[in-house]
Amino acid sequence: MATGKKVCVVGCGNWGSAVAKLVAENTPRYPEFDDTVIIYVLEEVFEGRNLSEIINTDHENKKYLPGIKLPHNILAVPDPKQCIQDSDIFIIVIPHQFVNSTVAKIKSFNVMKPGSLAINLVKGIELTEKVVNCFTDTIEKELGIPCLALSGANVAKNVAMEEFSEATIGYKNKEHAVLFQRLFDRPYFKINCVPGVSAVQVFGAIKNAVAIAAGFCDGLGLGSNTKAAIMRIGLNEIYRFACKFFKDINTDVVFESAGVADLITTCIGGRNVRCAAEFAKHGGKKSWHDIENEMLGGQKLQGTSTCEEVYKVLVAHNMENDFPLFVVTYNIAFQGAEPAELIRKFSNETLNPF
Amino acid sequence: MATGKKVCVVGCGNWGSAVAKLVAENTPRYPEFDDTVIIYVLEEVFEGRNLSEIINTDHENKKYLPGIKLPHNILAVPDPKQCIQDSDIFIIVIPHQFVNSTVAKIKSFNVMKPGSLAINLVKGIELTEKVVNCFTDTIEKELGIPCLALSGANVAKNVAMEEFSEATIGYKNKEHAVLFQRLFDRPYFKINCVPGVSAVQVFGAIKNAVAIAAGFCDGLGLGSNTKAAIMRIGLNEIYRFACKFFKDINTDVVFESAGVADLITTCIGGRNVRCAAEFAKHGGKKSWHDIENEMLGGQKLQGTSTCEEVYKVLVAHNMENDFPLFVVTYNIAFQGAEPAELIRKFSNETLNPF
Repeated sequence: MATGKKVCVVGCGNWGSAVAKLVAENTPRYPEFDDTVIIYVLEEVFEGRNLSEIINTDHENKKYLPGIKLPHNILAVPDPKQCIQDSDIFIIVIPHQFVNSTVAKIKSFNVMKPGSLAINLVKGIELTEKVVNCFTDTIEKELGIPCLALSGANVAKNVAMEEFSEATIGYKNKEHAVLFQRLFDRPYFKINCVPGVSAVQVFGAIKNAVAIAAGFCDGLGLGSNTKAAIMRIGLNEIYRFACKFFKDINTDVVFESAGVADLITTCIGGRNVRCAAEFAKHGGKKSWHDIENEMLGGQKLQGTSTCEEVYKVLVAHNMENDFPLFVVTYNIAFQGAEPAELIRKFSNETLNPF
Repeated sequence: MATGKKVCVVGCGNWGSAVAKLVAENTPRYPEFDDTVIIYVLEEVFEGRNLSEIINTDHENKKYLPGIKLPHNILAVPDPKQCIQDSDIFIIVIPHQFVNSTVAKIKSFNVMKPGSLAINLVKGIELTEKVVNCFTDTIEKELGIPCLALSGANVAKNVAMEEFSEATIGYKNKEHAVLFQRLFDRPYFKINCVPGVSAVQVFGAIKNAVAIAAGFCDGLGLGSNTKAAIMRIGLNEIYRFACKFFKDINTDVVFESAGVADLITTCIGGRNVRCAAEFAKHGGKKSWHDIENEMLGGQKLQGTSTCEEVYKVLVAHNMENDFPLFVVTYNIAFQGAEPAELIRKFSNETLNPF
């Protein structure tokens, strides 16, 4: 369809590739989209060949999503300027530390079509003491286009294997949400849409800090009553954190995949929980560095850095007392507090107000 | 304190005994309560002695909560009339199938003091086709006294062992909630109060049906994305079910222990999940009866009967289409539908409205 909007997936990691796959399954089904889905590839050589060539020839991202066949209407393009000038819809799915530089680069080409739209799939928000900022805001401000957000309980590989899951789109303009629901919804990837873009992103970013606390419970050998309590307190603190810093928050997202479901999966399994359990088992005496080396082959944990960032924000805003779970988790992870302090913090004779 | 209200725990199972313990730790701390806590014991002989005598002499409920020392201000009383005429506050914590007969019996003595109060800790509601009724309503109507509700992510034994957990009190009159929070709140058992008594009870009752669905996910070998999606859909259906049948529902309870936390623990572990996993593993060909015999020593599962009761209510109210998870879970559990139908039900091309 010559008149359909062309979609560009910005990012070719495992989640970017899984998303390109499902989007490319949908674009031929609707006249509002061009069949071809562009995936922007930051070119690199893998097994002696360019990654973009591997994707376009073998229809597989052999480096980041091996074993998954990609639809033939995915076109890997290593030239960023070409990606931008050819596309109408941008799906941003890159590591959070690269969002600002990538957006600046996209802006610098100055070739974006008027009427373009974006959706942010990055799991993370900007947390730097005084500043709490969603990437949707950065994208809207810098690129001058509307930006929605998508998040959910989604392990990339499992979505790529078409295991049933759900995700949540947060929107400001309902018409845009209708369009993006068509683009993303698959029988194995069901999309619910909620008003407001911030809550979806805040949950996606900060759940990892709660997973650290949940992992401490596991490492301390605490039972399901206690772990459920910590997860519940975490859910509440994420929600209240969102309400403190953003205006477009309502309870809808708690009921959605980006809210409660993502929190559950993140706190039940995953690297943050396992590493935090190891930390607590050793009474906080084993360093995160050693744990990352032993358990993650040197990769960095996201939950611990989220903990630290959230804590600094709370201090900068004088809000430590309002977020006891975030604070005690930070104190255990970074200030030498005993892991058992996690429970002692809440185990007191003060009656909770209501 | 001669003027303090006397508390009577109606029920001496493991949860009743654990609750008597924590309440008896609190009554001496507040002038509004009489120190002594009565526990009504339906007399039985255990190891050659009356259960009430064991509790009063050994300060331990050796039959239902062995190994846990009970405070000496707990007084086991086997005479129901004496329990009623001596008390001001009734904590109802008996198996749900005995609520109606017990309430009728209490009423028949006609000795209840004016100004008495009750709180319902029974996990269950009445579900009989056309009738959906909370036990708080039965108690209020039959006994003519206000009745609150308490529920949460609480395994009795763990609460008795003072492992940290939380619970939720649902109330109509805030003053009553203030009183009951004092009565129940312990450093290891933190109480939040929410307005409305029904949601607390509906969650406590129907979560078990969702646990059956969650167990099917486990038995089918599905990943965390999928199980989280099913739990999320279940959370939504419980909440919507509550909204359909009761007027005092708001989203508060979802954030509380009686809501999301209890659902999480119930769907992650416990007998309903394990037995449903076994059922799905055998493609639904192994009977519940056999599974209960093998895995529970012949005890009955609560989740399956809840499933059946909820289904009959939905049929009687023509609401099958609004609760697809409850319906498909019933169809798998009782109508020979394949376990994989659980996912097929949601895995479709229909876009979810918003």
